[in-house]
Amino acid sequence: MEKQYVLGLDMGGTNSVLGLVNKEGQVVASASIKTQSYPDITDYINALYDAAQPLIQKAGGADAIRGIGAGVPNGNYYTGMIDGAMNLPWPVVPFAKLMSERFGIPCKLTNDANAAAQGEMTYGAARGMKNFIMITLGTGVGSGIVIDGKVVYGHDGFAGELGHTTAVRGENARPCNCGKKGCLEAYCSATGVARTAKEIVSATDRPTQLRELDIDHITSYDVYKAAEAGDEVAKQIFDYTGTLLGQQMADFVAFSAPEAIFLFGGLTKSGHWIIDPVVKALNENVLKLWRNKVKVLFSSLSEADAAVLGASSLGWEA
Amino acid sequence: MEKQYVLGLDMGGTNSVLGLVNKEGQVVASASIKTQSYPDITDYINALYDAAQPLIQKAGGADAIRGIGAGVPNGNYYTGMIDGAMNLPWPVVPFAKLMSERFGIPCKLTNDANAAAQGEMTYGAARGMKNFIMITLGTGVGSGIVIDGKVVYGHDGFAGELGHTTAVRGENARPCNCGKKGCLEAYCSATGVARTAKEIVSATDRPTQLRELDIDHITSYDVYKAAEAGDEVAKQIFDYTGTLLGQQMADFVAFSAPEAIFLFGGLTKSGHWIIDPVVKALNENVLKLWRNKVKVLFSSLSEADAAVLGASSLGWEA
Repeated sequence: MEKQYVLGLDMGGTNSVLGLVNKEGQVVASASIKTQSYPDITDYINALYDAAQPLIQKAGGADAIRGIGAGVPNGNYYTGMIDGAMNLPWPVVPFAKLMSERFGIPCKLTNDANAAAQGEMTYGAARGMKNFIMITLGTGVGSGIVIDGKVVYGHDGFAGELGHTTAVRGENARPCNCGKKGCLEAYCSATGVARTAKEIVSATDRPTQLRELDIDHITSYDVYKAAEAGDEVAKQIFDYTGTLLGQQMADFVAFSAPEAIFLFGGLTKSGHWIIDPVVKALNENVLKLWRNKVKVLFSSLSEADAAVLGASSLGWEA
Repeated sequence: MEKQYVLGLDMGGTNSVLGLVNKEGQVVASASIKTQSYPDITDYINALYDAAQPLIQKAGGADAIRGIGAGVPNGNYYTGMIDGAMNLPWPVVPFAKLMSERFGIPCKLTNDANAAAQGEMTYGAARGMKNFIMITLGTGVGSGIVIDGKVVYGHDGFAGELGHTTAVRGENARPCNCGKKGCLEAYCSATGVARTAKEIVSATDRPTQLRELDIDHITSYDVYKAAEAGDEVAKQIFDYTGTLLGQQMADFVAFSAPEAIFLFGGLTKSGHWIIDPVVKALNENVLKLWRNKVKVLFSSLSEADAAVLGASSLGWEA
C-alpha cells in the first residue's frame, strides 16, 4: 500500500496538536490534547494515540501513514530524546522511541524552529532552495538552518541556536532567559520588543500613544498599531529591533551564504515596519559581494498550520 | 592504472607552490614559480606546466595523477573562477578550466581557508570529524566550515567569511580592509594584533619592553616574545585579542554546533598566550549545553606543507 500521509505533532507547553497531512501539504484532519494534563509520559502518549484514531481511520489505516514527525521543545533529532525541556511535565524522555512503539509507525522529532525550516522547504516558499535560514520571532527567537538541502544539526543535534548569538555586548546588555547577556532573543522576540518599548517610552518626552497603555504590558501588536497610526516612537522601536536583527543576520550570511533568510512568527505581522530596517541593516553590514543579493522573506506557511506542517515534513523521512 | 597522486597548488600573491602529494598526505616533490612574473594568464599556466614536469614524471606520468586541487585567492569552488582577486595579475579568470585543459588533468579550486579545512579533514587532526570549523589567523582572518563531512560553500560558493563577522560594534570600531567596520579580521589577524599593540602601548604608562620597538612595526611575534619574558602589557594584548576571538567563536558554535574549532596560521605560534583567553571567552559566551564541550585545537598540519596539502586534497574529488 502506498503511504500517502504523514502525521505531524506540534507539541507546545500548553497544547499538543496532531495533524494528518497529505503529499500536497494539506492538513486534512487534526486533533489536540492538553500537554499538561498528563504528568506520566505513558498516559500522554496513550491520550495522543486515542485522539489520533479518527485521523488514522481517515487515512485508511496505519499502513497508509509513512511516518510521524514531531516538533517538540528541546527535541534532539539525532537521539529522538526530549532533553531538558523545562516547560514540559517530562523534561527528559526518549520520545521518538515511545511514539514509534505505541503507534507502530516510525517517528522522528526535532525542535520547533528546525521543523519550521523543514516545513518551508517541503511545502512552502523554500521549495527548491538548497541554502536558507529560517528565523522564528515568537516568545523566543529560534532558527533552523538549511545547507545543501539539509537541516543543520551539528555534532550534537543542537545546531541552529541563532537566538543566542550576541547582538549587544558590554555591561548594559540585557540579560537573556538562558543566563547569558545580550542575546538576539532578548531584543528581537515578542518579549524583547516589549522590553524595548518600555525602555524607549520611559526614556523620552515625545508624545506617543503607547504612553496611554500599561507600560509593563505593551505588546508588539500595540507597537504595530501605533506605527500604522503614524506614531514616531513606535517606528523608533521597530527601527531599533530591526537594526539589531539585520546586523546579526549579516553575520549569519558570512557563515553560510544563504539564498534567502525567512522570518516567521508573531513579529512578522508588523510587516514593513520590521522588515525595512532589517533589510537596511543587513545590507549595510554584509560584504559587498552579498549586498542586495540575499532575499529576506516572510514564511509562506499559514501560521495556523505551520507548526503541524513543519513537524509533519519530518514524517516523510522517518 | 591506479591514480596514486594528486597535485596541490598554493597560489599566493607572490609565490605559487605546486606539490605532488601521495595518498598518505606526503608532499613527495614540489616546485614553485613567481606569480607576478606572468601578466598573461596563459603564460602563467604554461610556466606552471613546465615547472610541473619533474613532478609528473616522478608520479609515473599524468595518468597516475587523479586531479589538481588549487587554493587560490577569491577562488570559487562552484564556478572554478578566480573572481575579484586584487592581489593577482588576473583578477577574473576561469582558472580551473584553463588548468584542466593545459594539464589534461581535472582541476578543482577553492580559497585558501577552505583548502586548509579540507586538508585538515583529509590528512590532519580532523580526520573522522564530520563537523568542525577552521579559522586561519594570518595577514587576514579566513575560515573553512565543515558540516556533515563537507566544506560549506553556500548558495554562491562564498560561504565561510567569518573574518568579516562583526566583533566590535559602534563608532569606535576599527575600519577593516573590506570597507566595513569592526570585522574580526581587523582585530585577530597579525595586522590586527599589531594595531592592538600600538593602541595599548600608546595608551598606558606601564613599563613594557614593547615600548623599545618602533611602535608602527610591532609584530605578533614581538608580543609573543615579550609575554614569554613576563611582560604584562604583552599579556594584555593577547587577552584582548583572544577574548574577541573567543566571543565570536561562541556565536559560530550557536550556528553549527561543531565538535572542534581549529586555529591555524602565524598567530597560533603564540601558543597558550592566545589560546587560553580564546577558550575562556568561548566558554563564557556559549549556551550551557556547550560549555567546556567544544574542542579548541591548533591545526596539526605543518605550516610549510599545509597550504599545498590542503589544496591537494581537493584533487581527490576532481
